[in-house]
Amino acid sequence: MDTIPGTTSARLISSSRVEGTAVFNLDGEKLGTVDSVMIDRSTGHVVYAVMAFGGFLRMGEKRHPMPWKTMVYDKQREGYVVSLSRVDLEAAPHMEANEFGRLDDRDYEETVYTHYKAEPYWL
Amino acid sequence: MDTIPGTTSARLISSSRVEGTAVFNLDGEKLGTVDSVMIDRSTGHVVYAVMAFGGFLRMGEKRHPMPWKTMVYDKQREGYVVSLSRVDLEAAPHMEANEFGRLDDRDYEETVYTHYKAEPYWL
Repeated sequence: MDTIPGTTSARLISSSRVEGTAVFNLDGEKLGTVDSVMIDRSTGHVVYAVMAFGGFLRMGEKRHPMPWKTMVYDKQREGYVVSLSRVDLEAAPHMEANEFGRLDDRDYEETVYTHYKAEPYWL
Repeated sequence: MDTIPGTTSARLISSSRVEGTAVFNLDGEKLGTVDSVMIDRSTGHVVYAVMAFGGFLRMGEKRHPMPWKTMVYDKQREGYVVSLSRVDLEAAPHMEANEFGRLDDRDYEETVYTHYKAEPYWL
């Protein structure tokens, strides 16, 4: 999390602030942290927040692409809250840190959006 | 620039890849580097790439908010190209590193979009 004050505004948020922000489930359990966001090159829309989960010192960490619109920021927890249990999260589509190319496969994206019950961004 | 292979896809790009990418003008002069991108919280759209310019070891660096849609990636140069001379850039709206709150002011945003002759994202 960027600690420089004033690097954000009321309507806009810097990618450097989103990265490193904690992700919690509805029970307040920390699930992981946001690694980065994925931007659609052609439209400029953020379509995923990619959460890093598990592993140790980044080794063995999985990456969970989560539809951006399912992330709700909770000021009190200073993190995003997603309505997913830890068990549901472990069952969610994920990939290795070097497998981002899988997001080019619409079928894979469909499994992601279906898991989070989110409206596909490509329709 | 993230050097881990596979952290991007053909359609999508990670914010961690955009950050640190060089920005050139049409003459091939390097103007600065992308510091971060600014995301509209409510819509999830990337509205600015913020370029760091000038200064030394991040001291005295200015931040130039550039409309995302004016940034064109040039594979050969491995950077973004904007059709702005160095002189035009120095005249472009910019702010100190701790003044991102200025982006909440629509008048300020208008001067930015006018300078880059870009279509305002809020209309």
